[in-house]
Amino acid sequence: LREGDSEALAKLLDPIHPADIADLLEQVDEDTRIRLVQLYGMEFDGEILSELNEGIRESIIAALHPEVLADAVRDLESDDVVDLIEDLDDPQRDIILDALAATDRAAVEQSLAYPEESAGRLMQRELVAAPEHWDVGHVIDHMRAHDDLPDQFYHVILVDPRMRPTGYVTLGKIMASPRTAKLTEIMEDSFRTIPVHQDEAEVAYAFNQYHLISAPVVDEDDRLVGVITIDDAMIILDEELEEDILRLAGVGETSLTDRVRDTVRARLPWLGVNLVTAIIASLVIAIFEDVIASFVALAVLMPIVASMGGNAGTQSLTVAVRAIATKDLTSSNLWRVIRREAAVGLINGAVFALVMGLVGVVWFGTWMLAGVIAAAMVINLLVAGLSGVLVPVLLERLKVDPALASGTFVTTVTDVVGFFAFLGLAGIVLL
Amino acid sequence: LREGDSEALAKLLDPIHPADIADLLEQVDEDTRIRLVQLYGMEFDGEILSELNEGIRESIIAALHPEVLADAVRDLESDDVVDLIEDLDDPQRDIILDALAATDRAAVEQSLAYPEESAGRLMQRELVAAPEHWDVGHVIDHMRAHDDLPDQFYHVILVDPRMRPTGYVTLGKIMASPRTAKLTEIMEDSFRTIPVHQDEAEVAYAFNQYHLISAPVVDEDDRLVGVITIDDAMIILDEELEEDILRLAGVGETSLTDRVRDTVRARLPWLGVNLVTAIIASLVIAIFEDVIASFVALAVLMPIVASMGGNAGTQSLTVAVRAIATKDLTSSNLWRVIRREAAVGLINGAVFALVMGLVGVVWFGTWMLAGVIAAAMVINLLVAGLSGVLVPVLLERLKVDPALASGTFVTTVTDVVGFFAFLGLAGIVLL
Repeated sequence: LREGDSEALAKLLDPIHPADIADLLEQVDEDTRIRLVQLYGMEFDGEILSELNEGIRESIIAALHPEVLADAVRDLESDDVVDLIEDLDDPQRDIILDALAATDRAAVEQSLAYPEESAGRLMQRELVAAPEHWDVGHVIDHMRAHDDLPDQFYHVILVDPRMRPTGYVTLGKIMASPRTAKLTEIMEDSFRTIPVHQDEAEVAYAFNQYHLISAPVVDEDDRLVGVITIDDAMIILDEELEEDILRLAGVGETSLTDRVRDTVRARLPWLGVNLVTAIIASLVIAIFEDVIASFVALAVLMPIVASMGGNAGTQSLTVAVRAIATKDLTSSNLWRVIRREAAVGLINGAVFALVMGLVGVVWFGTWMLAGVIAAAMVINLLVAGLSGVLVPVLLERLKVDPALASGTFVTTVTDVVGFFAFLGLAGIVLL
Repeated sequence: LREGDSEALAKLLDPIHPADIADLLEQVDEDTRIRLVQLYGMEFDGEILSELNEGIRESIIAALHPEVLADAVRDLESDDVVDLIEDLDDPQRDIILDALAATDRAAVEQSLAYPEESAGRLMQRELVAAPEHWDVGHVIDHMRAHDDLPDQFYHVILVDPRMRPTGYVTLGKIMASPRTAKLTEIMEDSFRTIPVHQDEAEVAYAFNQYHLISAPVVDEDDRLVGVITIDDAMIILDEELEEDILRLAGVGETSLTDRVRDTVRARLPWLGVNLVTAIIASLVIAIFEDVIASFVALAVLMPIVASMGGNAGTQSLTVAVRAIATKDLTSSNLWRVIRREAAVGLINGAVFALVMGLVGVVWFGTWMLAGVIAAAMVINLLVAGLSGVLVPVLLERLKVDPALASGTFVTTVTDVVGFFAFLGLAGIVLL
């Protein structure tokens, strides 16, 4: 296959969806990838570019013949072109912009003028709008007369004379109604517009919360400037959740196809922060060096208290971070949630205090040590539950992303409290 | 407001979207919730029920007057009714089923016959299909003649005489084409059907990967039985990702509104598993009790090695778990990913070995101890990177959800290896 037979390759890849070709390109190694792309040549589809990871996309754009590239991007919708070029360096960006027709280029440049991750970047300018006073016949004739309709559209947006959207009609309703029906009669009840500067995460939230299929985007004067469709919102929702998963795990923006250098750069800072918090925990242990010297069993059991606290903290912080993101945790139910976490922490603490107390007695044969670890367990799981809610809420109020920073703070709290409680109690009881 | 004035309440809630009313009901406490619902009375909208969390939904259904309930569910689409009742107990389920018209009830019961979390549960039966040989005029006349069209539909599905879907036409294309155009001429190129028994996670993946808007669902004989739309797929995608986030944090299916008892039940088992692994790590420490007794500084530094290993392991396992879920990590690039994780582990290990070596020298003034912790750091971060990939891949092959179980195994590996490397080396070098 890789003997340079570009016709055979084109025939092979032709029935495959661009998204799958992109996945294929991501999975092979760098050399194969470049050879594949160059062999594929003129058949290369712009949609494949849209589907690729950023790092790989850049290397492929660099490898493509400028003519092939120009041809590939010409068929894309304006929002896809924006998505494609917003992360590119200037020279690559210019090659693509030059390939576009003048009107398309203007649309893309206008979108790029909006802030990153805003509704303005996400929307497409291709849309179908109609004056409020039209009837069904009008719309159908209008559409038949225009051959530059968007590839995908589901609604006709009604606008007043100043281009402010006032409602929308689904295509299904239009088709099911007689030609004489007024658009305002078959308009949908609920209707939401999206401000062009709104953050894309908020846009995805609105689509998910209100089950929108498409929504008109308006500028500061409430005038219609574009439309966002659910497929774009779904991509953003997916990205936001992926980002939260990675942030909760202490990994920056990253993907499997990154080079070693990029991966190190994404992970090293978090490990560095973790090292600082681990050293803080160690300093707590250092205070009790004498106690440990007298009872080495403490060193053996110490990590159990810390580990249980860390895990319980991670559980409650994850639930809290997600509840903040989905707007389920607000000031009106915060106290109820805190009381509940305290109760859960106490119950779990009591259960594992009992278990570890028994383990302590059997293992080391002393009731004192067992009592100490049991008490430390209750204290640490209670603190874990409380800090798991309070830390993310506090970070949110300070405008810091709770997904990003909560883990470190909560673990520090549980480590410090856990070691203090366990070793401190041991010092009092056993010495 | 809560003086029993149900008219004022209805007026207040009327302009609010059902999803927001549901959120409101979730945020107030139990008593207020029941009083609100009973006051709201006949105005209660079935869609509010669809938007509620399971636990709260049950208590509200129990509080609603059967007539109000029957009225509320009658307007829902069949897929929403299925979603509503699949988690209910039999008596509540029967009340709702009895409220439905006979044909609707048959549709709902048929959907319930499909396995949970399958495409059959997700699909709606309301759809618009047309024979392949029809032209645009045919379809429009057909739609005008039928007043039971689905609330939302975006495509007309083409079927052969045996009801097997062969393609689809977007409503936009139909409206833009002359009445005489054949449907087969304006049919979309790409077309995917979904088997009725497919897992809903796979359905969401297909929508996300191929940017589908709606897709026909077929039975074993390839006959059309329903349609799934992107808004349902988006809900599933959201649920699947939320579930993965919670599972990675060791929390079972749970939500902020659960009672204390349910929350304890969701978190206790994971803490129990963690306790077992923590005890295993303690057993490793116990082997080296003599070494620690001679050098208490080891007990102070021990948690640092474990914590760094645990964090690095979590980073790489999270990336690997997501890559498996999005099908980006396959057998064809596994070796490349493993080599990359090994490289990243070695580099991060070397960096923190240097840092901790210096900290060790400054803090405890011995080069030996510094050397031991530096070596243990490299070993543990390397092992963390490797086990972070290998454990999820292995679990996936054993058909265990990697999101669910990877964390425990990886932490056990890094704890055991970390303590062994650190204390073992210390024993050799320092004694």
